[in-house]
Amino acid sequence: MTRKPKKLLNHPNDVPAEQLEGLLYACHGKLSKVEGYSGVIRTDIADQQVVVVTGGGSGHEPMFAGFVGKGLADAAALGEIFTSPSPDIIIETTKAAQKGQGVLFVYGNYAGDNMNFDIAAELLEEEGITVKTVRVTDDISAAPPERMQERRGVAGDMYVLKIAGAAVQSGYDLDALHEVTSKANFNTRTMGVALAACSIPQTGKFNFELADDELELGMGIHGETGVRRQKLTSADEINQEIVDRICADIGLQAGDRVCVTINNLGAATYTELLISNRKVHQELAKRGIQVHDTLIGSYCTSQEMAGYSVTLFRLDDELQKLYDLPCDGFAWRK
Amino acid sequence: MTRKPKKLLNHPNDVPAEQLEGLLYACHGKLSKVEGYSGVIRTDIADQQVVVVTGGGSGHEPMFAGFVGKGLADAAALGEIFTSPSPDIIIETTKAAQKGQGVLFVYGNYAGDNMNFDIAAELLEEEGITVKTVRVTDDISAAPPERMQERRGVAGDMYVLKIAGAAVQSGYDLDALHEVTSKANFNTRTMGVALAACSIPQTGKFNFELADDELELGMGIHGETGVRRQKLTSADEINQEIVDRICADIGLQAGDRVCVTINNLGAATYTELLISNRKVHQELAKRGIQVHDTLIGSYCTSQEMAGYSVTLFRLDDELQKLYDLPCDGFAWRK
Repeated sequence: MTRKPKKLLNHPNDVPAEQLEGLLYACHGKLSKVEGYSGVIRTDIADQQVVVVTGGGSGHEPMFAGFVGKGLADAAALGEIFTSPSPDIIIETTKAAQKGQGVLFVYGNYAGDNMNFDIAAELLEEEGITVKTVRVTDDISAAPPERMQERRGVAGDMYVLKIAGAAVQSGYDLDALHEVTSKANFNTRTMGVALAACSIPQTGKFNFELADDELELGMGIHGETGVRRQKLTSADEINQEIVDRICADIGLQAGDRVCVTINNLGAATYTELLISNRKVHQELAKRGIQVHDTLIGSYCTSQEMAGYSVTLFRLDDELQKLYDLPCDGFAWRK
Repeated sequence: MTRKPKKLLNHPNDVPAEQLEGLLYACHGKLSKVEGYSGVIRTDIADQQVVVVTGGGSGHEPMFAGFVGKGLADAAALGEIFTSPSPDIIIETTKAAQKGQGVLFVYGNYAGDNMNFDIAAELLEEEGITVKTVRVTDDISAAPPERMQERRGVAGDMYVLKIAGAAVQSGYDLDALHEVTSKANFNTRTMGVALAACSIPQTGKFNFELADDELELGMGIHGETGVRRQKLTSADEINQEIVDRICADIGLQAGDRVCVTINNLGAATYTELLISNRKVHQELAKRGIQVHDTLIGSYCTSQEMAGYSVTLFRLDDELQKLYDLPCDGFAWRK
C-alpha cells in the first residue's frame, strides 16, 4: 500500500552536485562555481557594486541558483537537499562575489539558515566585510501577521531577489538596498496547497503522507504543517480561499497593483496552474485590484510534491520601477 | 491497488476553456481569443505578413497557445484534451489571424490533426487563402529515419515554431518560410522517457499503467508505446542512450552546433531535469558537438506524466541567425 518515490537519478548522495553541474551547463558561462564549495556567482559582477547573496537548501530548484544573474542575486550558497548551507560555504561564496561595497544576505526564514548565515555574517564582519540581512517571510500559513518574523520564506523569495538585484543595478547603496528589499519582503505574501508528498533522494521515502482524497492548505515547501487538511474539493473553492486569505493578510484594497505568481511545487500539471491563475485573476478583478504581471511555472519547488502556491506581490511606484527593469537569471529572464 | 489520478480541478468538461482563460489572463493583452472558437491569436500581427498557425489537442500546456507571440506562431487552434481541433476551429482561427499574404500551418504529425488541418486548408484555399503545411516529426521513437513522415511531433514543435516565427519577422515570403521551417523540422529530434502515466480529466483514469519499478523509453506524449519498457536504472544510463540514439539518428558530428531542450513531461522533478542536462552536455562535449543554447522546463507536457524528453536542434548559419532573434510568447521569451 505504501508507495515509494520514483525518480530517475544516479547515486542519491550525488544529487546536489550533479544538479548544480546541470544548471551550470545550462547557463553557458554566465554563472561559475565557487572553487571547492557548493556556491555559484555571476561572472559579470560590476567592480563598484554592493552584492546580493542568497542561498538555502537544495531540492527547491530552480531556487536558489536559478535566481543568480544580472538584475537578480549575485551569488548563491547551496546546502544539501532541504538543508542549510554551512557557514563556510556562505563565507567563501560571499568572498568570491563581494567587491568591497558591502553585502546583502537575502534568504528564507528557517532556523538553520538563520543560524548559518548569521555566523557567516559575523565572521565576514570580522574580516571587514559589511553584511546586512533580509529574511524572506512570505508564507502566510506559518504564523499570524503580528508574528511575521516567524513566517517561512517560500516562492516569494523571487520577488525579493528581483527587487534587490534591480536596486543594485540602479546604484542603491547598502542601506538603501536593505530598506527597499525589506519593503519588497513586506509586500510579498504566499499560500500553497499540497496534494501529494515530497521525498528526499537520500531517504527514498516520502516526508509525509496525504490520503488519496485529501489536500493540505498552506503546507510548507519541506512538508511543514499548513493551516488545514481536508477532502479534495473544487479548484475554485481553494483558489478563492487563498486569495481571500492573502488579500486580508496584506490588506489589499481596490486600486492596489500586484504581480501574481502561480508556482508549481513540483508535480502539479500545467492545467492546474492555469486554472488557478484564472480564479486568482477573477477574484482580484472583483476587488478592483490591478495585476501588473503574471508568472506561471516552476520557481521554488519541493521535489515531487503535487500542488502549487500563489504569491501576490504588492507594488508601489518604487517597487514597480525596479520590477520592470530587465533581469537575466536561469529561472527568470525579463 | 489501482491508484486514481489526483488533480485540483473544477468540472472536468470545463478544463480546456478554463485553462485557456487562465493563460489569457497571464498574457496581459498580448493574446486574444477567437470569438466563439477555442483559438487564440497575437494581438499585434503586422498587416503585411505571412502568418504561422499552429494547434493541436489541449492537455500539453504551455504548448500550443504558449508559443503564440511575437517571433513565434501568430495563432493557435486548440482541441479538447488530447484531441485535434476540428476544422471549423482551425478555419476561424486562421481567418482571424491572416493578412492576405498566405498562411503556414505548423503542427505535430498525428492522424487527427493531419485530417482536420488538411480539411481546413482545402476550405481556406477555396476562399482564396493560400495555405502551406509543415508537420512536425521530431519523435525518433515513433519510426525509423527512413519513415520520418510517420513520426509524431512532440516538444520539438517549439524549435520549429521559433524558426517559423523568426523567418516571418525577417520578411520571408510563404515559399521561403515553408522551406526554412521544413529544414528546422528536419533538424529537430526528440526522445522521451516516462516513469508514470498521464490521465485525461474527463475519464479520471490513467491512460496506461507503469509498474513501480519500471520506465518506458521513447513513450509518446499521449502514452503511445515507446521503444522499450525496462526496470528503473541510473539516470546517466538512460540519458546516454537518448543522446546516442538522437546523435545517430540525425548524424551529428564533431563541430556541429545544437540547441538542447530538457522538457518536463509533467511531474518530473527539476532535479531530474538538471541531472539529465548534465549528462546530455557531457555526452555532446565528448563528441565535439557545441551547445549554442539550453532550455530546461515545461514546454510540451502530458498532464501528470512523470518523466522528460530530450530535444536536440541542429543549427546551420541560417537557423542560428533566426534562432537568436528575440521572441515573446508566454512559454518562451528570448
